[in-house]
Amino acid sequence: MSERGRLLVDCPDGPGIVAAVSAFLAERDGNIVEADQHAADDGRLFMRMAFDMPGLVEHLDAVRADFDASVATRFDMRWRLVAAARRTSFAILASREPHVLMEILWRWQRGELDADLAMVISNHADHREAVEAVGVEYHHVPSVPGDRRASESRILELLRGRCELAVLARYMQILTGGFLTEAGMPFINIHHSFLPAFVGAKPYQQAYERGVKIVGATAHYVTEELDGGPIIEQDVVRIDHRASVADIERLGADLERSVLLRAVRWHLADRVLRHGPKTVVFHGH
Amino acid sequence: MSERGRLLVDCPDGPGIVAAVSAFLAERDGNIVEADQHAADDGRLFMRMAFDMPGLVEHLDAVRADFDASVATRFDMRWRLVAAARRTSFAILASREPHVLMEILWRWQRGELDADLAMVISNHADHREAVEAVGVEYHHVPSVPGDRRASESRILELLRGRCELAVLARYMQILTGGFLTEAGMPFINIHHSFLPAFVGAKPYQQAYERGVKIVGATAHYVTEELDGGPIIEQDVVRIDHRASVADIERLGADLERSVLLRAVRWHLADRVLRHGPKTVVFHGH
Amino acid sequence: MSERGRLLVDCPDGPGIVAAVSAFLAERDGNIVEADQHAADDGRLFMRMAFDMPGLVEHLDAVRADFDASVATRFDMRWRLVAAARRTSFAILASREPHVLMEILWRWQRGELDADLAMVISNHADHREAVEAVGVEYHHVPSVPGDRRASESRILELLRGRCELAVLARYMQILTGGFLTEAGMPFINIHHSFLPAFVGAKPYQQAYERGVKIVGATAHYVTEELDGGPIIEQDVVRIDHRASVADIERLGADLERSVLLRAVRWHLADRVLRHGPKTVVFHGH
Amino acid sequence: MSERGRLLVDCPDGPGIVAAVSAFLAERDGNIVEADQHAADDGRLFMRMAFDMPGLVEHLDAVRADFDASVATRFDMRWRLVAAARRTSFAILASREPHVLMEILWRWQRGELDADLAMVISNHADHREAVEAVGVEYHHVPSVPGDRRASESRILELLRGRCELAVLARYMQILTGGFLTEAGMPFINIHHSFLPAFVGAKPYQQAYERGVKIVGATAHYVTEELDGGPIIEQDVVRIDHRASVADIERLGADLERSVLLRAVRWHLADRVLRHGPKTVVFHGH
Repeated sequence: MSERGRLLVDCPDGPGIVAAVSAFLAERDGNIVEADQHAADDGRLFMRMAFDMPGLVEHLDAVRADFDASVATRFDMRWRLVAAARRTSFAILASREPHVLMEILWRWQRGELDADLAMVISNHADHREAVEAVGVEYHHVPSVPGDRRASESRILELLRGRCELAVLARYMQILTGGFLTEAGMPFINIHHSFLPAFVGAKPYQQAYERGVKIVGATAHYVTEELDGGPIIEQDVVRIDHRASVADIERLGADLERSVLLRAVRWHLADRVLRHGPKTVVFHGH
Repeated sequence: MSERGRLLVDCPDGPGIVAAVSAFLAERDGNIVEADQHAADDGRLFMRMAFDMPGLVEHLDAVRADFDASVATRFDMRWRLVAAARRTSFAILASREPHVLMEILWRWQRGELDADLAMVISNHADHREAVEAVGVEYHHVPSVPGDRRASESRILELLRGRCELAVLARYMQILTGGFLTEAGMPFINIHHSFLPAFVGAKPYQQAYERGVKIVGATAHYVTEELDGGPIIEQDVVRIDHRASVADIERLGADLERSVLLRAVRWHLADRVLRHGPKTVVFHGH
Repeated sequence: MSERGRLLVDCPDGPGIVAAVSAFLAERDGNIVEADQHAADDGRLFMRMAFDMPGLVEHLDAVRADFDASVATRFDMRWRLVAAARRTSFAILASREPHVLMEILWRWQRGELDADLAMVISNHADHREAVEAVGVEYHHVPSVPGDRRASESRILELLRGRCELAVLARYMQILTGGFLTEAGMPFINIHHSFLPAFVGAKPYQQAYERGVKIVGATAHYVTEELDGGPIIEQDVVRIDHRASVADIERLGADLERSVLLRAVRWHLADRVLRHGPKTVVFHGH
Repeated sequence: MSERGRLLVDCPDGPGIVAAVSAFLAERDGNIVEADQHAADDGRLFMRMAFDMPGLVEHLDAVRADFDASVATRFDMRWRLVAAARRTSFAILASREPHVLMEILWRWQRGELDADLAMVISNHADHREAVEAVGVEYHHVPSVPGDRRASESRILELLRGRCELAVLARYMQILTGGFLTEAGMPFINIHHSFLPAFVGAKPYQQAYERGVKIVGATAHYVTEELDGGPIIEQDVVRIDHRASVADIERLGADLERSVLLRAVRWHLADRVLRHGPKTVVFHGH
């Protein structure tokens, strides 16, 4: 029986790479079902292949070792080869605003997210009931004014060994670079503006004051720089002079939900590759 | 015979204003064909009425004097009452990039702009032939490095008394506050980004470097603050990791054309009212 | 204290209508906060005014009687004058598909719909628990093959006297003209295609087979003609050759939710006026 | 020196195809710069590779013969291998409406279409001057009422041996199946509706009468079935109740221009593969 696998590659571009990779898969009776590649301006090649291979799950370690020895080293690749059936374990971090948290929770519950939701962490106690009602752990980690380290340590304890991804669902605490490094996993945030416009606090208020005719939302990987990490997805909605800040918040809330959801779905399907301060996104539906 | 007129009003909000204005029009057999209003958060009312009135053009001065005496003064209005048939005279200012200039020229030629194109002014000689071929004056006003005053004086001479609007079709010179005041007419600019993102030079290059997934264009009234004037219209287009700066420029060029065109059309139809640093735009098709 | 009211008018166009209406409001110290009008090609005028008037709720009957006597009759108006605070009572009709039902339910629960949800009626028992959990009546009215009258009679009994609007949230039963007449209230349906493309069953399958590059959803008032009633709102999403029917269904599900929600919100805010087989929609955010 | 080539493949799916194709290119020092593939539901594989290969143009015939012998036959491929530098020769067919013709002409003139415009054919004499002014042949082939054969024969004479593509720029004559077969080249048409809505004559009038809230345009390959050929690209624009047929025509005209332009650009870049009644479009910017 064949199992679906995914291979992600990032290496210096040059002739023969696709041939070597596809020969490797063909020799193991792998059938490529999706293939995307991007030759970037700076000479790096990004590649994603989804393939069906008999016995992949059983022989995964051997396939990886072979790939490393026979292909990856030769082309100086950063790479990742996974069985598609393996589900990513993730956490949601939230604050008071419920709409993004509820969206992710709802989609997960309906089976629309190919991942295991390990826990919800929040600096408020508000959503405990709603989260526990669907059988998910809820951890209230209060923010201690002036002592960011306290809450970050507790969050690290919770995430470590149990999660491979953290989704910030309007989590309103700034995470330190040290914390991100220690966590050692990607954090995806939703910022409620069309970045790089309106960095920082109250972007909808800023948009209202500037009188823009379109507002947006941006999903991005979190880095130490506030709202400066690699952008995964953005979307926008039109407004006009009649829109109050409350109207913009309501319209924006729906944008935030759909933009973050797409970013998380693409991340989980290994469609997003980081390329320095930018991303390569091999879109799927 | 009835003629179409347009009345624009901006005044402190309060009861009785619509009644007073519409009674004024009704008493002169005016039939309102379009009516828009906006009660802003700061207590000001903005209103636009398009109406058909017998003998409007012939009696325009009298109608205006009556309106001033019987309505405008009472409600402390800033207002404007015009015959729709009266065509605005405008100038285009351009630099080297032809696409926006050609778009406006082409639409004007096809009768899609309800205005008279008085002249094209450019700091380059490049487009003289194309412009003169359609019977429009072309004035080459070279930029003198270190002496902005020289070219601004010449432009003022050209515009003064002949134009009521200037359209900056990718005109790459910064206009001084003094010049704008002396010119005493609105200038509409197209900036090739989704403002306030990427103010200043080379916005497409900036967008490429930031890795945004959507780029935009913004039409706005020009003020002394660079790219900071009231926004009239914006639009966006999706890009992905494959887009080079040249791709973004090409996609953006089409956006710039359509966004500026819409802004100019709405301005000419008296659909745009300034409200401090923002605009009220009563959209039409 | 002032209360918000809304006045909807549909009458033969002619001079003096706005003046008469606004004078009527001004005489009662009404302050117009929103005004929209549309002079249609066929000579009819549509108008919507939102206004604040002292004592409106207390004197509503008198205000209506006065308006009828002094304005409406004179201009041969069809009209409606309501206090904005009065909440519309509505029902949801659903079948098996949960996503649209859940969306409307969720928005209502969060206070985003300015209306009272009286009941959910379904030809399946599936959603009883979820609906009753939020304190809403659930009525299971099974469809009897070959005897549409049986279920329609039961639904009429439930709706009559308790609802002023019915929202079809992917309700998959065709309603007869007789039923619609007897019900005497508007029914808003969501059809999962960009009407008039793909009328009838399995529109996503039809879209897949035709190879369209964009799919849509359409909210419309229900009439006797299948998927032929006046359109309130439509929206679309891009797909490409990779989209399976399941992908289209998933993307379309989100469209259906947002399109129906906008249509219902606009209907509840008295922003939608029927104009023969079409609608006039005075959009708000 | 390396030259850019493009390889298009359509064959039954199965393991080893990418490996065989990429090995073929690698053996000739070909570097793949773009790769797209699509495994369709019906078991067919579609593939496009853009590659740089030393001496490609000089050895093109040999490369093709080798590919046929060593790869294509083995996998039962329909295929095409071209040098990207080779420019497609195309004709435009137009009627009275100038906007689409002028758009294509203008883009071609500005070097934005990677193709040679061989001629413009029209059943009216209207555009001769504008077309000849940019150095392009203009052929007036009047439609003979009741004798479609006469004009089709003349058009065949003109196209045969000189063109590989015909672009219908609002050409209002129906082409017979016999003609299309004899011509033996793709015809790309722009239909001014969101197909399959509003097939046939006066789609904007039809859209107005139905009261849709969005109108569209569709570029498709022409087949014998009226407006039924494989869709390449579609796009839409919002309208509301205020839009007259003339407004819709004006908004639609801009859509038609941009949608047809994208379809033609993608066709010229070998990004469009036919798949029965549908297309596979490997998008580029």
